[in-house]
Amino acid sequence: MKIVVLKFGGTSVADVPKIKKIAVKVKNEVNKGKKVIVVVSAMAGVTNNLIKLVKSISNTPPHQEHDVVVSTGEQVTSALLAIALESLKIKARSWLGWQVPIISDKSYGKAVIEDIKTDQILEFFKKNQVAIISGFQGLSDENRITTLGRGGSDTSAVAIAASFSAERCDIYTDVDGVYTTDPRIVKSAKKLDMITYEEMLELASQGAKVLQTRSVALAMKYNVKLRVISSFEDVPGTSITKEGSNMEKSEISGIAHSLNEAKITLSGVPDQPGQAAKIFGSLAEHSINVDMIVQSSSINYQATDITFTIPESDLLIAESTIKKVQKEIGFRKFITDTNVVKISVVGNAMRTQSGIAKTMFETLANNQINIHVISTSEIKISVLISSDYYELAMRSLHSSFGLDV
Amino acid sequence: MKIVVLKFGGTSVADVPKIKKIAVKVKNEVNKGKKVIVVVSAMAGVTNNLIKLVKSISNTPPHQEHDVVVSTGEQVTSALLAIALESLKIKARSWLGWQVPIISDKSYGKAVIEDIKTDQILEFFKKNQVAIISGFQGLSDENRITTLGRGGSDTSAVAIAASFSAERCDIYTDVDGVYTTDPRIVKSAKKLDMITYEEMLELASQGAKVLQTRSVALAMKYNVKLRVISSFEDVPGTSITKEGSNMEKSEISGIAHSLNEAKITLSGVPDQPGQAAKIFGSLAEHSINVDMIVQSSSINYQATDITFTIPESDLLIAESTIKKVQKEIGFRKFITDTNVVKISVVGNAMRTQSGIAKTMFETLANNQINIHVISTSEIKISVLISSDYYELAMRSLHSSFGLDV
Repeated sequence: MKIVVLKFGGTSVADVPKIKKIAVKVKNEVNKGKKVIVVVSAMAGVTNNLIKLVKSISNTPPHQEHDVVVSTGEQVTSALLAIALESLKIKARSWLGWQVPIISDKSYGKAVIEDIKTDQILEFFKKNQVAIISGFQGLSDENRITTLGRGGSDTSAVAIAASFSAERCDIYTDVDGVYTTDPRIVKSAKKLDMITYEEMLELASQGAKVLQTRSVALAMKYNVKLRVISSFEDVPGTSITKEGSNMEKSEISGIAHSLNEAKITLSGVPDQPGQAAKIFGSLAEHSINVDMIVQSSSINYQATDITFTIPESDLLIAESTIKKVQKEIGFRKFITDTNVVKISVVGNAMRTQSGIAKTMFETLANNQINIHVISTSEIKISVLISSDYYELAMRSLHSSFGLDV
Repeated sequence: MKIVVLKFGGTSVADVPKIKKIAVKVKNEVNKGKKVIVVVSAMAGVTNNLIKLVKSISNTPPHQEHDVVVSTGEQVTSALLAIALESLKIKARSWLGWQVPIISDKSYGKAVIEDIKTDQILEFFKKNQVAIISGFQGLSDENRITTLGRGGSDTSAVAIAASFSAERCDIYTDVDGVYTTDPRIVKSAKKLDMITYEEMLELASQGAKVLQTRSVALAMKYNVKLRVISSFEDVPGTSITKEGSNMEKSEISGIAHSLNEAKITLSGVPDQPGQAAKIFGSLAEHSINVDMIVQSSSINYQATDITFTIPESDLLIAESTIKKVQKEIGFRKFITDTNVVKISVVGNAMRTQSGIAKTMFETLANNQINIHVISTSEIKISVLISSDYYELAMRSLHSSFGLDV
C-alpha cells in the first residue's frame, strides 16, 4: 500500500474556497494510485480565538479543559475537508485524535506522542482512499483529549508518516520552500531544492520559520522524507532528507538570523571551579535557554568575564535570577546588550571543507562589522553582531559564499 | 449518592458572563450536598454558524461529517463551564458524548440514545462534584460522533437523569415556566406550578415551545421529575410530574395554538372501503404527518368529503402526491386552505369531568367563530378555525375556563 502524508497548515485551510482547492490537490494524489493521509490544522485565526475564549473565563484554566476547547479547531477542519472530498466523489472520512487513536502522554497543552495505532486506518484504506486526521491532538491514557502545543500539526504529520511508513510527508504552507536566507532581507535569496535534516534544524532554530524544529528532529530520527511546498503556487518545494543534495554548488546551504537575542556579560567573575555551574544552573531552574557562551581567559588567573546570550524575552527574569546569586558568585558588574543579532552560516559541507570560518570572518571584517561572540558546531558557525549591521552582514555573506548565483 | 441533573440551553450559555453566572447556580447545588450532572447546549448562535459552514462546502454533506463539525459547539461549552467551576474551587470536568459514553444508534444527525454508561461518572463522583456532559451528542458503534438533532440537549438531559436515577432534572431556559397559554397573545396568562407529562406533551406539540416533545415523552416513560425554570430570573418554575397538582383550581391546564397548519379537503370521494388507506398511505410514504381527520357521512352512500390537516410546509408535496393517485381514488376536487389555526384546550381533568366540550363550543359560538374541524383525545379538545379569530378565541377560552383569575 503506497501511503503519502500531506499536511496543510492554518493559512492553507483559512476559508471554504481554500479547503475546496486543497481537496483538488488531494484528489490528484489519489488519482496517482496513492492512499492519502491528510493532516490538517485549524482554520487560520480559529485557535487564537478559542484560546482567547478560554482566557476570558480564567487566566489559569485546567490544561485538560483548555485542550477540549482548543482541539475543536482541527476537528472542524478535518470534517470540512472530508465533506469537500466526498463531493468530488473521493472516499474520505475524518479521524479525530482519539479515533485513530494517537496516544500521547498526559502533558495536556504540550503533550508528546507516544504511539500511533495504524490498524484501523489500514483497514479503512482497503475500501477507501483518504483519511483526514486532525493535527495537533492526541489521547491520554485517561481517555481525554490532549494537544501537542502550538505548531504541533507539523509534528503530528511527521509522526504519522513514520508510523505508516509513508513514501513521503509533504508540508503544505504559505511559503514555497526553504531559502538560502530570508528573501525579505536578501533579494538574491534562492530556493533550495534539497537540504539535510541537520541543516534544516539549524536554519529553523536560527529563525527561518518554515517548519517546527520538533518535527524536523522527529523526521531525522525516523528518516521521513519531508518536503516543504506551497499551498497556493504550483511550484516544486524543498526536499528535506538524510543526504541532501550532493550536487549543491555552494559549500553552505543558507544564512540564518535571529533578532530576539540578548547578550549578558558578567565581569570580574572570580576564576574558580564551579562558577559556570552556579550561573547556568540558576538560569536553568527558571527554564531560560542559554545559547552562545564565551569565557575570556583571565590574564592574572584571578578574575574572568563570562558572556552569554538568551532570548530577549527572558532578560528581566534572568537579571533578577543572577543578581540573587551575585554574592555567591562574586562577579563585579552585570552588563546587558539587546542591540544584537545572531547570524549563522549553515552547511552540511562544513564537515568536510575548511576555510568557511575564514571566509565568514573576512567578509564581516571587510564590511567593518565587529564580532561580539562566536560559536560553532559541526554544521554551522554563528556570530553575534550589532543589530545595526545585520542586513549588510546577511547580504555580503550570501554573496561571498556564492549563493547569489 | 444524591444526583441532580441541570440542563442549560443555548441562550443560558450565550456568553462568558452567563457561563460564569451558571457556574454559581451549579455551585449552590453542590453546597446543598448534591452531586451535579450539568448538560449544556452550544452557545447561542454557534450551532447555526457551524451548520452554515458545512452547507458552504456542500449541500449534501455526509451526515457523519456534519456531526463531527456540529458537535464541537457543545464540546466547547462543556469545557468552558468546567473552567468556570474550577475557578470557584469546585471539582468539575467536562465529559464528551464519546467519553461517558452515551451510546446511540447510527442515524447520524438525528440519532436515538440506546444506552448511557454510568460507571465512569459514578467513579468520578467519589472524589469530585460536578460532571458536565456535552448535550446533543452520542457515540455510534462505529466509534463515531453522532448528534441527536436540533433541540436534542433536552433529550440528553432527561435520558441522563433516567440512567443515573437522578432526584430531578431541571431544564434551565429563557422562559420562567409553562403558562396556561401564550403570554404574548393573552395578557392574563398564568404560570403553572405543576403539570402532568401528558398535559405538557399536548401543550408542547401544540405549539407551546418550551420543551422538546421527545424529552417530555422520555421523562414520562422513566418517570423523571422534570422542572422548567428560568436561567435569568430567580423565580420558581413549573414542575412536570406523573400526577401534576390535585390542587389546580381550573379543570383545564392550558390553551395551545398552532399556526402552521394547512387544511386539505378532497370532495366527491367514492364511498368505498380502502379509500382512506390509499390517501393516507401515499402521504405516509412521503413522511407527511396528518393530524386532524374528518370524514363527513355521505348522504346518498355514493360519495363523501374527506378533510384533514398537515403542516403547512408539506402542502406542495402533499398536493403532488395526492394528485398522482387522483384517478385511483376517484375524488372530484382538491381544495386547500392555509388560513387556519388549531386551538386546543388541554387538561388532565377532562378524563373525569364533563362539560368541557360544551363550554369550548359555546364560547366560540358566542364570539361568532366558526369551527372547521374538531378532534379530541383523552386530555384535549382541538378545533380548527380561521386564523383571523385565533387571538380572540384564545383570550375568550382562557377567560371562560377560569384561567384569568
